[in-house]
Amino acid sequence: MSAQQRRLHLAVRINSTGTLGRSWSWPGTQWNRFADVDHFVRLTELARAGGFDAVFVSDHPALARAGRARPTHTFDPIVLFAALAAKVPDIGFLLTASSSYNSPYNLARRVATLDAISGGRAGWNVVSSFNPDVAANFGAAPLPPREERYRRADEFLQVVKKLWLSWDTPTGEAPAESLWDGASARPIDHHGEFFDVTGPLNVPIGPQGYPVVAQAGGSPQGIELAAKHAELIYASLLDKQTALVFGANVRGRAAGYGRGPDSIRVLPGLTVIPGATRAEAHRKHEALHDTDEDGLIAEFTARAGLTGRRIDPDKPLDPEWFPVVEDHQRPEGHRHALADFVANEEVTPRQLVRRVEGGHRLVVGTPEEIAADLLSWWEDGASDGFNLQVPILPDGITELTEQLIPVLRAAGAVAVSYEGRTLRERFGLPDPRADAGSPAAGVPA
Amino acid sequence: MSAQQRRLHLAVRINSTGTLGRSWSWPGTQWNRFADVDHFVRLTELARAGGFDAVFVSDHPALARAGRARPTHTFDPIVLFAALAAKVPDIGFLLTASSSYNSPYNLARRVATLDAISGGRAGWNVVSSFNPDVAANFGAAPLPPREERYRRADEFLQVVKKLWLSWDTPTGEAPAESLWDGASARPIDHHGEFFDVTGPLNVPIGPQGYPVVAQAGGSPQGIELAAKHAELIYASLLDKQTALVFGANVRGRAAGYGRGPDSIRVLPGLTVIPGATRAEAHRKHEALHDTDEDGLIAEFTARAGLTGRRIDPDKPLDPEWFPVVEDHQRPEGHRHALADFVANEEVTPRQLVRRVEGGHRLVVGTPEEIAADLLSWWEDGASDGFNLQVPILPDGITELTEQLIPVLRAAGAVAVSYEGRTLRERFGLPDPRADAGSPAAGVPA
Repeated sequence: MSAQQRRLHLAVRINSTGTLGRSWSWPGTQWNRFADVDHFVRLTELARAGGFDAVFVSDHPALARAGRARPTHTFDPIVLFAALAAKVPDIGFLLTASSSYNSPYNLARRVATLDAISGGRAGWNVVSSFNPDVAANFGAAPLPPREERYRRADEFLQVVKKLWLSWDTPTGEAPAESLWDGASARPIDHHGEFFDVTGPLNVPIGPQGYPVVAQAGGSPQGIELAAKHAELIYASLLDKQTALVFGANVRGRAAGYGRGPDSIRVLPGLTVIPGATRAEAHRKHEALHDTDEDGLIAEFTARAGLTGRRIDPDKPLDPEWFPVVEDHQRPEGHRHALADFVANEEVTPRQLVRRVEGGHRLVVGTPEEIAADLLSWWEDGASDGFNLQVPILPDGITELTEQLIPVLRAAGAVAVSYEGRTLRERFGLPDPRADAGSPAAGVPA
Repeated sequence: MSAQQRRLHLAVRINSTGTLGRSWSWPGTQWNRFADVDHFVRLTELARAGGFDAVFVSDHPALARAGRARPTHTFDPIVLFAALAAKVPDIGFLLTASSSYNSPYNLARRVATLDAISGGRAGWNVVSSFNPDVAANFGAAPLPPREERYRRADEFLQVVKKLWLSWDTPTGEAPAESLWDGASARPIDHHGEFFDVTGPLNVPIGPQGYPVVAQAGGSPQGIELAAKHAELIYASLLDKQTALVFGANVRGRAAGYGRGPDSIRVLPGLTVIPGATRAEAHRKHEALHDTDEDGLIAEFTARAGLTGRRIDPDKPLDPEWFPVVEDHQRPEGHRHALADFVANEEVTPRQLVRRVEGGHRLVVGTPEEIAADLLSWWEDGASDGFNLQVPILPDGITELTEQLIPVLRAAGAVAVSYEGRTLRERFGLPDPRADAGSPAAGVPA
C-alpha cells in the first residue's frame, strides 16, 4: 500500500489531429502532422504544462485505409517516445505494443531502454491485436483466435517481467576482473507454450524496477489478464455502476494472484468536449461529426447494427439489441461496455449519443460540469482517474489545462506539481523488486 | 553519380567504455555507463564537435557473460538513437539490427520512425547474427545455417525497402473526404520463402527516401548481400591490396544488380591508437591489453589457434595456418580478412599485433602517422573512409577531434562543417526514389 495522498490520475492520448473524424480539417489542426515529430513534442509539452501524469498512444502496426480512415497510427510508439522523453521532462509515456506481433526479448529490451532513457517514466499497454490488417503484415497465418492470443499475451508478460528483473543494476567500484558473480545476472530459462527464452536481458533493472504494465481489460479474457498483470487498466466503462462492479471484480481476481488492491489503478477512456455552455458544447460535438443531433443518432444506430429497427430517439434502448459478438474492427470490451450501459440505465438514443464516443465514455458540457463528473467518479471509487481522449489536437489539451485542471486542482484531486520521480511513484504503485515472489512479478511460484 | 567533392567519411563506434578490454578501468572512463543515456549523449556531442559523419553502434541482443566479457551491447540501438537524435543535431546514426531476429514490418517501421524523427539521419547496418546466445533468446530452434540466414537477410531487405517506399509523403491541402486515392499508399503484397507482408507501411516515405543501408560484407554470402543491397560496407580489410580487390569485386557484383559504382561507400573498421611518439602509442596499446609486446604476441597466437605451434615472433606467418572455419564467437569476415592479409604481405607476429585489433585493422602511431595512413588508403581508392573503433571513451573521441581531424581537414579530405541535410546527401549516395525500378530498391524487375 502506498502512503501518499490518493490522486485523480490523468493521461491524455496524443495522435495526429485528435480523436474525432472531423478533427482532420478543424481550425488549429494540420491534417498531415502524423509524420512530424515537432507536433508530438508540442503535444507533450502542452500536456506537461497541464500537469498530466502521462501521454498515451494507442497503436496498430498497419495503415488504416478503409473508408474515411485517417492515419492515426504512424510512428512506432517506443521510438517516438524515446525522442519525446529526451525533450520533455517529468511527464510519463504510456505506449501500446502488441504481444501477438513482437518477440518478448526484443520488446522487453526496447521498453526497458525507453524506461532507462526517460529516468523511469515508461508504461507499456499490452494489446493482443484484433485486426486482420495487422496480421497480414506479419505472415500468412490468419489472426489467431482470441483465446490463443490471450494465452500468448499472458506468457509474453511472464517472460518480459522475468527479463526485466534478470540483471541487477550495476553500481559501485569497477570489478577487478569479471563483471559477473553468477548472481548479479540470472538466466530466466523460460520454456513455455509460445516462447523459449534463455536470458538474462542485456538491459539492467531500471529506475522504477520495471515499467508500469497497462492493459485494456475489456473482454472476459482481458479482465483475467488484467487481474494477473495490469497495474493500469483502461477498460471502456460507460456507467458508474458497471465501473464499480468492474473494479471490485478485477481487484478480487487480482487477490487470487496474490496482488494487493492498491496494486491496480483503473483509468477508463473518456472523451471530453467542453464548451462555454452545454448547448455550445453540443454544437461543437455535432460539428466534430459534421452533422446535427439527428445525424449523431443516425450514426449511432448504423454503427450499433440497429438500422433495420424502428428506433424512437426518445425511448430507452432495449438491452436485448446489444449482444456481444466478435468484431474485428473494434475491441470486444467496447461492446461489453455498451451492453452493460443500456442494461444498467434506461438510456434513450438521444441521451446515449452524448455519453458514448468512439467506444469510450463521453462528457459534453461546461468545464465545471466535466470536472464535477470526473470528481464524482473518482470520489465514489468508480475509477482512479481517466485516460482522456481529446477531439482536437493540440488545442484540446490547452483547453483542458486552462479550464478543467484548475477545477480539479482546487478540489485537491490533482497535484499542483509533479510528485515522485518515476511514473510508478506518481501512481503510488508497488515496486516489483519488493514483490518478486508473486506471480504478478512473473516469477513462477 | 554525385557531383559533390569526394570526401573521406568517418563514423565512430560508441559503446560504454571503448573497444579494448582494459578500457573497463582506464582513467577517464566509468565502468557502468552502459545504462547511462547521458554518457551516450556526451559521446555523440563530442563526435559532432569533431565533425564525424555518424556514430555507429554494433549489436547483439544477448548479455555477453563469458570470461571477462563486458556488457558492450545494452540499450536497444533504435530506441537509444531516437533519444540521441532529439538531443544532438547534424550527425548521422548508424544502428545495427538483426534480420534473423526481427520482423520486417516492425523493423522497417521503427527505423523509418527514427529516420523521420532525426530529419533523415538514420542508417541501418543489417546483420544476420552468428551467435547461439542470441538464438537462445528467440526460441528453441538453433541458429539457422549461414546460408539460410543470408537468404533470409536478402528477402528481409527486399521487404523492408518495398515498405519504405510504399506510402508517398502526404503534403498540400487537407483532402476533402478520403486521404487515399489508391495510388498514394500501395500494398506491397510480398509473398516469399520467409515472409508474407501485405503493407503498405504506416510511416510515409522519409526525408532521405529511405535510411542508408549498411552491411559488413565479409563472408562470400555477405559480399553478395552487400553487392545487392548495401550502400555502406564495413568489411574488415587489413591490407590495401585486399581492400582494392574487395572494392572492385563488390562494385562489379553490384553492377550485375543494376547498381552504379557510386552507390557504394566502403568504410572498413579501423582501430586507432595515437600517441605523442610511436613508442608512446605502443606502450598505450600494451597497457590497454594490460600486457607487454610479448603478451600481445601470446594473446594473438592463442586467439588464432596457433598455441601448439613453435612460433618465431620475427618470422613471417605461414598463410596455411589461417584456414577459414566457422566460428560462432567472431564474424566470418574477420577470418577471411586475416587469411588474405598474411597471404598478401609477409608479416611477422610482432608486426601483426600492431596492425590487427579485435578483427579490424589497427594503426598505432603519432596523429600524423595515423592521418597519413588514412589519407593513403582513401587517395588510392582502397576505401571511402573508415568506421573508427576508439579504445577509450569518451576521451578517445576528443583525442581524434583535436589531433587527427585537423590534419585530414588541412588535406581537404574531410569537410570543415556538415554538408548536406541528410546522411544520404552527406555520403553522396543516390536517392532510392529516383532508382525505384532497380532490384537494389527492392522492387521486383
